Parts: sequence; C-alpha cells; structure tokens
Amino acid sequence: MSQIFIRKQITLLLTGFCVLILNSPIQSQQKDVCIALHGGAGNISKATLTEEEQNAYKEKMVEALKVGYEVLKNGGSSVDAVEKAIRVLEDSPLFNAGKGAVYTANGTIELDASVMCGKSLKAGAVAGVTIIRNPISAAIKVMTLTPHVMLIGKGAEDFALAQKLDTAGPSYFYDEKRWLQYLEKKEKGELTSGNKNIIFGTVGVVAMDKEGNLAAGTSTGGMSYKKNGRVGDSPIIGAGTYADNRYGAVSCTGHGEFFIRNVVAYDIIALKAYKGWSIEKAARYVICDKLKKQGADGGVICIDSKGNISASFNTSAMFRGYINKKGEMKVDIF
Amino acid sequence: MSQIFIRKQITLLLTGFCVLILNSPIQSQQKDVCIALHGGAGNISKATLTEEEQNAYKEKMVEALKVGYEVLKNGGSSVDAVEKAIRVLEDSPLFNAGKGAVYTANGTIELDASVMCGKSLKAGAVAGVTIIRNPISAAIKVMTLTPHVMLIGKGAEDFALAQKLDTAGPSYFYDEKRWLQYLEKKEKGELTSGNKNIIFGTVGVVAMDKEGNLAAGTSTGGMSYKKNGRVGDSPIIGAGTYADNRYGAVSCTGHGEFFIRNVVAYDIIALKAYKGWSIEKAARYVICDKLKKQGADGGVICIDSKGNISASFNTSAMFRGYINKKGEMKVDIF
Repeated sequence: MSQIFIRKQITLLLTGFCVLILNSPIQSQQKDVCIALHGGAGNISKATLTEEEQNAYKEKMVEALKVGYEVLKNGGSSVDAVEKAIRVLEDSPLFNAGKGAVYTANGTIELDASVMCGKSLKAGAVAGVTIIRNPISAAIKVMTLTPHVMLIGKGAEDFALAQKLDTAGPSYFYDEKRWLQYLEKKEKGELTSGNKNIIFGTVGVVAMDKEGNLAAGTSTGGMSYKKNGRVGDSPIIGAGTYADNRYGAVSCTGHGEFFIRNVVAYDIIALKAYKGWSIEKAARYVICDKLKKQGADGGVICIDSKGNISASFNTSAMFRGYINKKGEMKVDIF
Repeated sequence: MSQIFIRKQITLLLTGFCVLILNSPIQSQQKDVCIALHGGAGNISKATLTEEEQNAYKEKMVEALKVGYEVLKNGGSSVDAVEKAIRVLEDSPLFNAGKGAVYTANGTIELDASVMCGKSLKAGAVAGVTIIRNPISAAIKVMTLTPHVMLIGKGAEDFALAQKLDTAGPSYFYDEKRWLQYLEKKEKGELTSGNKNIIFGTVGVVAMDKEGNLAAGTSTGGMSYKKNGRVGDSPIIGAGTYADNRYGAVSCTGHGEFFIRNVVAYDIIALKAYKGWSIEKAARYVICDKLKKQGADGGVICIDSKGNISASFNTSAMFRGYINKKGEMKVDIF
C-alpha cells in the first residue's frame, strides 16, 4: 500500500470518527417527547355521564394522544403532532370543535382555532369560519404560509379554500343531540354564559418534540347559542393559546370572555418568565385563584420547557389526558 | 329647650359633621385627570411631511385631546373620554381608522377596534366591520351591553345596527390619496408588511378620570393592502389594548402580527405586576428592546396607576400627544 493510500484511509477513518462525535451530541440532545390534551371543562358530575359515554370520551382522547405521540416518536414536529391530534378531536362529534361544534343563536356554526410554535414564536389563527372541516389546519396554514397571524370570516375561508383544505357543509356539522340542545335554548332564549352546568367542549393539545420544541393549539365551536360573530379566547394568541420554548406551552378551555380579559395563556407564561414560578404553580394560581374569584369556569393544560405536564381546572371535570416523557399514558375526566 | 330637643340638635350636628368627614375624603380622593393619544408610528423623516401636513396632524390631535379632556374635567368616565377622543380621530381622513382607513388587497375597508375598562376589567372589541362609522363606539357597546368581549364581521355589524350606531358606505370611506396608494400597491402586488417606510396609522387613547379609573382604546383600518379577513393587534385585548387600574392603561400601534405574538399591551402590564417595573420602563423594554430585536416596528402610549404618561416607540416618528395631570398639553410627531 502506498503512503498516500494509507493517509487517505486514516483521513477517512478520522472523518468518520468526527462525524460520529458530531452526531453523538445531536443524538443525545434529542429530548423525550410528550403530549397532553384537553377536551373541555365543566361542572358536571359522574352521574351526568353514563359509563359508556365516559368510555367513549376516553377512547377518543386515547386515539388522539396516540396519533400525536406517533408523530413525535417518528421525529415529527410538535406543531405537526398538535395538528394531527386536534384533527382527531375535531373529527369526533363528542367535542365542541369541528364536527361536534355547537350552534350559534342563529342555528349556524362558527369555528375558531389557533396555534403557536414555541421555537419561532410564530402563530396562526382563524375565527368565524363555517365551512372548514379542520380549523386547526387552517390556523397552521395561516402561520406557515402567510405573513399574518389571524384571518377571520370569509377572508379566512377563501384562504383555506386556496390551500385546498377540506371543506364541509351543514349536513356534516349536523348532530341531532346538539340540534335538540339548540332548539331547547332557543325556546328559553338562554345564552350559555349564564348557565353554570355546561361543558366548555373546546379541545386543545400541547406537545414537545425530539428537538425540544414546544407547540400549543386550540380549536372550538365556541359558546353554545352564542351571538353570531362572537369570538372567545380559543383563536386569541395570549388568551387561549401560547407557546414559548423558554417557558412552556399552554392551551385553555373555559368561559372565553374571562380568559380574554385575563390574557390567561400568556399570564401563565409571564408568571414563569417574570416571577420564576413553575408553569404548574402559575397555571394553578391563574385558574384556581384569579379566575375562580371572578366566577370564571375553565381549565388549562401545560407543558413546561423541560417537558413536565400539568393540568389545572376550577370545575368539577375536565376531559384531559397525556403521554409523558416516560411514555406513560393517562386519560381522565373528573 | 327640652333636653330631648337639644340632644336632637347635637345628633343632627354630629350627623352633619360625620357626613362632612365622609364626604371630604371622597372629594380629596378625586384625581387630577389626564389623557394621552397616538395616531400611529412609522419610519418617516421630517422631509416626508410638509410643515402644513405636520400642522394638520397636530391640530387634529389637539382637538381630540381637548374633547377627551373636557369629558374628564366634567367628571365623565375614562371610557367615555377614550370614546369621544377616538371618534375625533376616526372621523378625520388623516389617520388609518374610521374615515381614513386604508384599503385591503380587495380594495375594500375592514375596521377593527377595542376598549378596556381598568376598573371592571371588562373589555369590548369588533373586528372586520365594513359599514360602521365609529368602530370604537361599537366596541364600547359590546363591552357594556353584551356578555361578550369580541364580535366580528357581520355579527358585529348586525349588533351595531341594532344599537343604532352610525353607519357609512364606501363613498364616506373613499379617500383619493389612499385609493391611489392602493392602486400603486396593487400594481406592485406589494403587501405593506414588507415595506419599512410606512406609517401604522392606528389610533389609540388612554385616560384617567376623576375617580382614578383608567381606560384604553384602539381603532384601526389595519395594514394597507392586507389580505381580506386579516386582523392585527388593535382589536385583540392583551395585544393592542389593555387597562387595569392597579397597573396602567396601554394602547399600541405597529406591525400587528408581532404585537399579537408578543402580547405587547399585557406584557407591559405583567412586567409592572410581576417584576415591579414602572410602566414606562416596561414599555421601553418591550418596544425598544424585545420588539426591536425582532425587527418589529411600532410604539405604545401608557398611563400608569398614578396618572404618569409615557410614550415609547422604536420608529423615527409617532404621532402622539397628551394633556397631563397639571393640564399641560403637548403634541409631537418626531
């Protein structure tokens, strides 16, 4: 063997070694992934839901968690996991989002959704859309394909159509149970905000991917029998949704007007950023102290910058679940 | 005189004395009123505006300040002062709000506004309205007459019509200069967000009344040549507007998408609430450090809980003015 050949071999070996060294830290920097979701909060008792109904909710939450977790385990982004998991919940009639959306006072449906990426601090939202099957996907397209954060009404729908997102008509969104609820409310002329025995069925997902990037997303049909054009906290960045890799990711559900006035999602982040509180402590304070004192019902799911999952709610129930960093899964209602 | 009569007289005297004592602190608790406004921020130089144009802007700002201050001096609420002052700016073609609104990419106008009361923490907002002459008044009606915070699009318009608010058609909103700007942008297919030499002509007012109650309001035509349905920070409570008697009142103007992602108005409040910073220091940090680093142009006006007025902006100009607690008035551009 010539000296040149030997040198080349050594160089190749060293290069390979360097590549290994360079690769190893990247490998070891990969985080354990985790995901959490909520499917709304409310003051319902165990007697309100049959065991069969409880199981149906739990099964759907398990399905959504698994879909999102699969994305994360395969190296997908937290934004992608949030989208896929929320789509499962939007496609189910069980939750007040997408297919299961409640009716407005006019007997129509108006959907809102938002998303935020904790790495880029980019965000997207749509509000008041009526023909988009999966509003969370429209929100993500706003974030990734436009210089804007929020599109509303027909402008949002035109954009979603241009992106070839799936549309759906009134027959898709029709649900007999929801419609009967609507007719009952219409007879009473009752706006949900005055009713304490309701579930805010908004759905939300927070996730951390292998890169340690956080994301949060929220989707809703809004408040049952709401005034047309009413928008709650779900599509409002800072109120219903927030994510910042340095602090955490938050998705809310509850009486939207109070969540807007209290800027709930960002308030939790601010307590971490400016007071050094844990995200869990901050969420508990905002939901169970600050909002509780105002008579505002609701809850929140969070993942902090280290992947710790927490859920806080001041109601008797919140549909919720997680798969933590160890891969342990749990879903719960009460 | 009988003893009973004398006793009655003494009791009456004492009662009167007590009433005086009770009344005196209330009288002395009355605060000196103050008001501040902005009419947008941007990177324009003195050469961009003729002296005549500068004077026109200044005169209109003086008019708005005086109208709001008059409300406050007469014992009116800060919310009322905010409304009256913003209406002056909305009715002028000089500012990008109400009559002077810029055109969307479709050549239409879409107006947004919001308001917040620092005493009750109640808030109101409208977004994407096209026929309401004074969106700030619609936002205030949402706050005071509905259980909601935000109404958008046709739902917001139907509500405003039911409240008999003044409407206006395309001919009212038509402005030759704005239209020519629109046609130029249309030819270039240019979205304003990429253009650094623009003025974000949003208007906003913050005020403190005799009761020491704060209020903040913001109104805009949004971003010139914006995509239809695009909503910026102006109608978003927490992003463009926030007020809390304990901390301060804030109204923003600037590149709305960044103001939403950074929850600017509430972030300033949170820095005061959680880190104990002055509102002025908090505003300077958020606008001139945090946003500046992100390449986001804009500014903010604030009144803190003691009635101290401040303005922060990271652009070369912000239309702004105030009448402080001493009754001193100042308006400025650069």
